[in-house]
Amino acid sequence: MDLDLDLDLGLDGAALTARLVDIPSVSGEEGPLADAIERALRPLAHLAVSRDGHAIVARTELGRAERVILAGHIDTVPVAGNLPSRTEGSRLFGCGTSDMKSGVAVQLRLAARLAAPSRDVTYVFYDCEEVAAERNGLLRLSRTRPDLLAGDFAVLMEPTEGQIEGGCQGTLRAEVTAAGKRAHTARAWMGRNAIHEAGDILGVLRGYTPREPLVDGLRYREGLNAVAIRGGVAGNVVPDECVVTVNYRFAPDRDGGQAEEFVRSTFAAWPVTVIDVAEGARPGLDQRAAAAFVATVGAGLGAPRAKLGWTDVARFAALGIPAVNYGPGLPELAHSAGEYVETGAIAACESRLLSWLCT
Amino acid sequence: MDLDLDLDLGLDGAALTARLVDIPSVSGEEGPLADAIERALRPLAHLAVSRDGHAIVARTELGRAERVILAGHIDTVPVAGNLPSRTEGSRLFGCGTSDMKSGVAVQLRLAARLAAPSRDVTYVFYDCEEVAAERNGLLRLSRTRPDLLAGDFAVLMEPTEGQIEGGCQGTLRAEVTAAGKRAHTARAWMGRNAIHEAGDILGVLRGYTPREPLVDGLRYREGLNAVAIRGGVAGNVVPDECVVTVNYRFAPDRDGGQAEEFVRSTFAAWPVTVIDVAEGARPGLDQRAAAAFVATVGAGLGAPRAKLGWTDVARFAALGIPAVNYGPGLPELAHSAGEYVETGAIAACESRLLSWLCT
Repeated sequence: MDLDLDLDLGLDGAALTARLVDIPSVSGEEGPLADAIERALRPLAHLAVSRDGHAIVARTELGRAERVILAGHIDTVPVAGNLPSRTEGSRLFGCGTSDMKSGVAVQLRLAARLAAPSRDVTYVFYDCEEVAAERNGLLRLSRTRPDLLAGDFAVLMEPTEGQIEGGCQGTLRAEVTAAGKRAHTARAWMGRNAIHEAGDILGVLRGYTPREPLVDGLRYREGLNAVAIRGGVAGNVVPDECVVTVNYRFAPDRDGGQAEEFVRSTFAAWPVTVIDVAEGARPGLDQRAAAAFVATVGAGLGAPRAKLGWTDVARFAALGIPAVNYGPGLPELAHSAGEYVETGAIAACESRLLSWLCT
Repeated sequence: MDLDLDLDLGLDGAALTARLVDIPSVSGEEGPLADAIERALRPLAHLAVSRDGHAIVARTELGRAERVILAGHIDTVPVAGNLPSRTEGSRLFGCGTSDMKSGVAVQLRLAARLAAPSRDVTYVFYDCEEVAAERNGLLRLSRTRPDLLAGDFAVLMEPTEGQIEGGCQGTLRAEVTAAGKRAHTARAWMGRNAIHEAGDILGVLRGYTPREPLVDGLRYREGLNAVAIRGGVAGNVVPDECVVTVNYRFAPDRDGGQAEEFVRSTFAAWPVTVIDVAEGARPGLDQRAAAAFVATVGAGLGAPRAKLGWTDVARFAALGIPAVNYGPGLPELAHSAGEYVETGAIAACESRLLSWLCT
């Protein structure tokens, strides 16, 4: 066994994060890191450890009245010349420092230290969050081992800069197609230019005013954007088709069906083909377990805010489990070569969760 | 030698066209047809025959005061299940019937019949007209054997439905780029959507009014069209670039430089990159040789009209030779699987040219 793959859970949060970062785990290649996590957790008598592919689930089984879940993905986007990790002052740089091995380090430290938490805790470490949904480890677990994910409340430790972010917006992609009639460009008046027609589709997008609904007390801000456009037959042909791909980010007071209805009515003048839709998740901060979390963990922090991006909290929502995003990483740095985490934020996150799980 | 590759120039125009059509000659594969044409012309004592690649040039050398050129390309676009040729009533169907083996048949018949025309005649049969300009056989001849193309007036036997079409419009393609700023679509207000911005470029195109100048007595109609559009980074990213490719068809009272200036000033708000430009050709019908042609060949036809598409007459114009388009084919059917020619038009075209070359 390579000693470098041993994880010492007695290291402080920053040092443990650095160890996790230095075991590369690009999506699909999480094996060595999953092995290391499993080896570190197996010896802990207070945890029941399960493995499913490259996902590890560790549970206390104390018969507490409430069970909470701390979940984090162990994969990263491709390395961008930013390994191994390095420290500069208060910052730890490297691939996955913010998204989200600092959160995973907090999970592991809590798992090791909390032999008798006040709530039963399920620690979920999963694979393939950064790639296509069908490969997502949390989705796989929810289908093959829903028993392992049972609980009253979940915390997804995605980077939120140490703030509590409730729920998440849904996302829908659709193709809106402008039609025309082909002709030689030397006799353009015999045709109808579909790219020119698509100007009206872009006009609708430019005239769009985002809805900003209040959902369970949090303010969301929607978005409707062209994310791709294509059209053209040849350099001398008036094109007969132009396809605009739009992405609608919708607040969680709408479900996927309502989102589709909105997009279809917005572009009623054109054929609309929905490509994919992912439901959002209501923040659910009015529910008991969530409210307790906000009261303890959120003490002294800014008010919980709405999560605008789509995250795996929606998978918990689909299982009927309220969930929030809360982690030490910096969301704006996710997926960037210059990614780093403030080491002080790792300790602060751990300390707040510790208070919550001990009271 | 395969007897099927023998051309009998004593066949009538329709039958000879059918023979030419049945020797496939997609661009780059003109060898067998060029061989057949060369073999048919070499025995004719009144012609001096030269060959350059798959191009054949046959010239009378009678010392006449005037030399005229009859030019046609022998290649076709790819066969589309439309060979061998077949006759239905007055129509001969098949790949190249209109564009332009019916014109080539007229050239060959005249070359065989006219031992002592009133003007010296140069018959040019060339390759690779249907593909990229740098492969064009007429362009190659104009560079390597300009002596073979010398003359006072040229007739390009492209399909014009038996009408005289003067000159040709120029064509310019350019990319017009809208810029933006990337952002996650969940936080779109942090970016600027380049596809939405491109709506203004399309607005300019939609607001465009074609110029319709009178040039040497012929009315041209210009055109400005988007022929391609592209933009998009990923399904969740506000894109930072959208590129619209525009095609400007310009009347021959403007040269390429003026065309570029027009496009740049029309899209002054955006970066413009010119991809390519091909000069047009003035109709030149006011010149003596051209006027004689119109008076004889055009007798009883509609008034000469402007050629809106770009054709190789521009190559003659570049050599200082006035040129017109005149051929029996139907331009609207060029490049279509259902291509055909009216057989009566082949005989009519030959008859009119014969009158001109005998008086």
